[in-house]
Amino acid sequence: MREVGIVGVGHTKFGKTVVPFIDMCCEAALEAMDDAGAKTGRCNHIDQVFVGTMGAGMVQRVSGTASAIVDTLNIRPAMAETVENGPASGGSAIKLGYMAIASGVADCVLVIGGEAMREVTGWEGTDFVATMLHPEAEYPYGLTLPAFAGLFTRLRMDTYGMDSKDLSIVSVKNHANACKNPCAHIQRPVSLERITNPAYIAATNPLVADPLRQFDMCPVSDGAAALLLVAKDKQDEFGFGHKPFIRIAGVGSATDTHVVANRAIPTDLLAVRLSAQKAYKMAGITAEDVDVAELHDAFQILEIAESEETGLFPVGTGHLAAREGRTALTGDMPINTSGGLKAKGHPLGATGVSQVAELVRQLRGEAGERQVPNAKVGLSINFGGFGNNVTATVLKAE
Amino acid sequence: MREVGIVGVGHTKFGKTVVPFIDMCCEAALEAMDDAGAKTGRCNHIDQVFVGTMGAGMVQRVSGTASAIVDTLNIRPAMAETVENGPASGGSAIKLGYMAIASGVADCVLVIGGEAMREVTGWEGTDFVATMLHPEAEYPYGLTLPAFAGLFTRLRMDTYGMDSKDLSIVSVKNHANACKNPCAHIQRPVSLERITNPAYIAATNPLVADPLRQFDMCPVSDGAAALLLVAKDKQDEFGFGHKPFIRIAGVGSATDTHVVANRAIPTDLLAVRLSAQKAYKMAGITAEDVDVAELHDAFQILEIAESEETGLFPVGTGHLAAREGRTALTGDMPINTSGGLKAKGHPLGATGVSQVAELVRQLRGEAGERQVPNAKVGLSINFGGFGNNVTATVLKAE
Repeated sequence: MREVGIVGVGHTKFGKTVVPFIDMCCEAALEAMDDAGAKTGRCNHIDQVFVGTMGAGMVQRVSGTASAIVDTLNIRPAMAETVENGPASGGSAIKLGYMAIASGVADCVLVIGGEAMREVTGWEGTDFVATMLHPEAEYPYGLTLPAFAGLFTRLRMDTYGMDSKDLSIVSVKNHANACKNPCAHIQRPVSLERITNPAYIAATNPLVADPLRQFDMCPVSDGAAALLLVAKDKQDEFGFGHKPFIRIAGVGSATDTHVVANRAIPTDLLAVRLSAQKAYKMAGITAEDVDVAELHDAFQILEIAESEETGLFPVGTGHLAAREGRTALTGDMPINTSGGLKAKGHPLGATGVSQVAELVRQLRGEAGERQVPNAKVGLSINFGGFGNNVTATVLKAE
Repeated sequence: MREVGIVGVGHTKFGKTVVPFIDMCCEAALEAMDDAGAKTGRCNHIDQVFVGTMGAGMVQRVSGTASAIVDTLNIRPAMAETVENGPASGGSAIKLGYMAIASGVADCVLVIGGEAMREVTGWEGTDFVATMLHPEAEYPYGLTLPAFAGLFTRLRMDTYGMDSKDLSIVSVKNHANACKNPCAHIQRPVSLERITNPAYIAATNPLVADPLRQFDMCPVSDGAAALLLVAKDKQDEFGFGHKPFIRIAGVGSATDTHVVANRAIPTDLLAVRLSAQKAYKMAGITAEDVDVAELHDAFQILEIAESEETGLFPVGTGHLAAREGRTALTGDMPINTSGGLKAKGHPLGATGVSQVAELVRQLRGEAGERQVPNAKVGLSINFGGFGNNVTATVLKAE
C-alpha cells in the first residue's frame, strides 16, 4: 500500500473571529500550503480536498462548502467533498484523505476542518451540539451533551474513586499548555486553588451540569485547521522536502450505540478502545510506543477516560496518572500539549485536524516551548456524539 | 490496486413517504444486503458506511446521521461518515466507498444516498436547493437553480439551434422509461402533443423559468438508494456470489468555478467533461465503449449537454441524437433507462446512488422491461451545484 505523509500544517488562532466560515477555512489551507513549501499561495498538486465540518449546513446554511473552498483557493478542478461526523468530522476527513491517496485515486490531498460557532450562541449553541444525539431516542427529550457528560462523570467518580479535583487537575494542566500555544483560544493560566477553593468556587467555577463546573468543559470557539497530505512516492516530484517524513501510520474509527442508554457498561467508551486498537494494529505499535497524545477533552472526564481506553494507562487509573503529573508536558506520557479542547478551544469540525496538526509539530520538533523531547510517535482521538463515532490517528516520524 | 465491485443494490420507491429519513435510508440498505445474499437482514462484513445526503443537517437537523444508521442497522462498530456534495452527494459517497476498499482500510462498504425533501415544500424547497449556490456571490441575490437552468438553456438554444421541443422530447422519453421502473416517482406516460401543443400548453405544461416549463425539470421527491461494495479478493470469503462481477472500473470527479458567472464559456460543463475523462481513463475505455448511461437530468437541458460533454455525442448534437431516438431504450445509446431525474425523481443525496443502482441492474441483465440488450459498460454522471462539482462512475460487467 502507498505510504501517506503530512507535509504541511495550518491553523487559525482559535477563538472569536469575524472572518467568514469559508475564508477562515481557506486561511488555514493557505498556511498549510505555505508550510509545505508552496510559497506561491497555490499548490497545483492538490487533486482532492476534504472539508470536515458539522455545521456548514445547519449553521452556515451552505451546501457544497468543499467546492466553494476549492474555487476560493483557485485549485480547480481538484475533487472536493464535505465530511460530517459530528465533532469527529476532522478526524474523519483525515481518514478519508489517507484513503484517497492510499487507493491511488489522489496523490496530494488538502484536509481542512472548520467551524464557525459564533453563529450559535447560548442555548442555540447547546441545541446545535445536541443535534448529534439520537434524533428519536434522545434529542426530543431535551438531553444535552453537558448533561450526558455530567451523568458519565458521576458514574466514573462512583466506580473509580475520583473526585471533582481530578477534573480540575486536568483543566489546570491544559490551561498551562495553552499558554505556550499561540493558536489557543484561552492563553491564560488557571491555578488549582482558584477553581477548587470552596470559599469562592461558586463565583470562579460555577456549576453547569452537576457535578461538572465551568472549568470541567471546553469553551465555544471558532477556528479552522488544515493539513497537506502527499503520497510518499510523489513527495520529491512535488518538491515537499520536509524532514522527517511524518507518516500517517494508522487510521481507525469505530461506532458505538447511537443511543447512549443502550450501552452494556456505561462507563466504557468502546468506540475509543476499538478505534485506537485499529490504528495501533495498522501502525504496528502498542500503546507503550506512544510518545505524545491529543485526546478529545470536550469534557475533562473524557481526557481521563480516553487515556485509559487507548491503553496509555490501566482502566480506572487515568486520574491517578494526572494527579502524579504524568500527563503534563514534563511527564512521561504528555497529553494535550496543545492545550486540548479545554483551553485551545473546540471548533467542532476543526478539532480532529487541529489535534493532528499539533502532533505534526511535536514530531517535527517544532512545538517550541511545549515541545516533548524526542517525540517520534503521536496518537490522536477525535470523539463524535457521546462516543458514538470515534476516529484514531497514529503518526510516526521517519 | 484492489478491485472493487458492487454485489448488492437497494432502492426505495421514490415519491412521497412518511417514513423517517434514517429509516428510509435503512430500508434501502437492508434491501442491498438482501440482494447481496445476506438474508438475515444483517451483514456483519460491513466495515464502513458512507451516507450521501445534502439536507441531513439543514433539513432534518440531525448530525452524525451515518452512525445513527449503523446503530439502527445493528452493524456496529462499522466505521461511518456522512458525505455532502450537494446533489452529487451520492456519487461522492460511491467514490469514497471505492477509495475505502482500494486503500485496504475496508473490505466491505455500504453506500447509502438519501433525502427527505417533503420537509421543505414550495419556496422552502427552492431555497434549500439554492444553498448550493455561492454563499456570497450568488445566493444573496436571489438566484435559484431553475433560474440558472433557464439562462443556460436559452444560451444553448441560441448557440446550437435547439428549441423547446427538444427538451420535451427528452422528457417524454424519460417518462416512458419510468413507466417500466417500479421505483420511479412518476410512472405515467406523457405525450409530446400534450406538453407542446400551443393550444393548451399554458395549462398542461406551465412556464416556470423562461424558457423552462414544468416538464423541462425534475419533480421534488423523497427517497433512498443503497449499494453494497466489496473487495474482489473478499467476495468468495464473504459469500457474495453474484455473477457477473459488477466492477467499479472508474471513478472521477472534478470541480468548476463555484460562481457560474466566472466561467469562460458558459455553455460548457467543464466538470462533467473532466470527471468523465478521469473515469474513462481509469477504466481504460472511451465514450464509444459505453452501452448505457444515467445522466443527471435535473433539468432536461442537462441530459443533452452532459451527453455531449461525456463524449457520447459530438458537442452541439445531443438534441439531434434525442430527436432521432438514439437515446431511447431502443436506440444505440440509451440514456436514463431508469426514467432519469425527470420521472424517477430526484431526492438529492439519493440520486447518484440510484443512478449506479440502475446501471448495476442493467449490467446484470435484471432491468426487466427496460433492459438494454448486452449492456456491459455503464456510465453515470452526478451533478452538484450548477456543475460546480461533478462525479462520474464507470461500471463494467466482468
